[in-house]
Amino acid sequence: MEAINLADKLEQFSDTWSPRIIAALNGQLVKLAKLEGEFVWHAHADEDELFYIVEGELIMRLRDREVSLKAGDLFVVPRGVEHCPYAPTGASVLLFEPEQTRHTGEVENERTVHDQAWI
Amino acid sequence: MEAINLADKLEQFSDTWSPRIIAALNGQLVKLAKLEGEFVWHAHADEDELFYIVEGELIMRLRDREVSLKAGDLFVVPRGVEHCPYAPTGASVLLFEPEQTRHTGEVENERTVHDQAWI
Repeated sequence: MEAINLADKLEQFSDTWSPRIIAALNGQLVKLAKLEGEFVWHAHADEDELFYIVEGELIMRLRDREVSLKAGDLFVVPRGVEHCPYAPTGASVLLFEPEQTRHTGEVENERTVHDQAWI
Repeated sequence: MEAINLADKLEQFSDTWSPRIIAALNGQLVKLAKLEGEFVWHAHADEDELFYIVEGELIMRLRDREVSLKAGDLFVVPRGVEHCPYAPTGASVLLFEPEQTRHTGEVENERTVHDQAWI
């Protein structure tokens, strides 16, 4: 039980597309990630996923449109919805999702990180 | 599926200690609340509760100590832990908690809001 400052936590890592866990509650994890460029198209069959933009800009590509997100915006990708996060100039995001969520969803590729670390 | 801007949502209400729902996912609700002054001591028997400070300052009083929280800080109150949020100069916070969580926990008093509204 301590204050968790997002900016302090973000200073602790620099690699992109590799979420770090900062808190756990009710079977859910709170993560921070740095994003730059384009991720992979994927969906999570059983989990809704929340993105909160801490800094920078994120374009959430959906199959039928794009949603532009900036610092202070929050976005929920419902389960089953294919999405491809794209951060042309970089972004830091907070993620909130169930413990079992893999960040690449049903897709297994070189971006998939299996052992996400606490910071 | 749309961008949810926290500042825009906060402009939509002004009353304190009355959380508004802004998103739902995985059986959890994301809420915004404006706080000023002292709340009531309470605990949630079965739910962990996340506070993220959007603006202002919040002092989280626990039975054995106080934790000072400022904008950009996140704090998790584990289930069963008595707490009393205190915002001497006002604060806006984001809450993340299971759908069934009552904001006054086991305590029923004049502060208890039964029908929390979506904004």
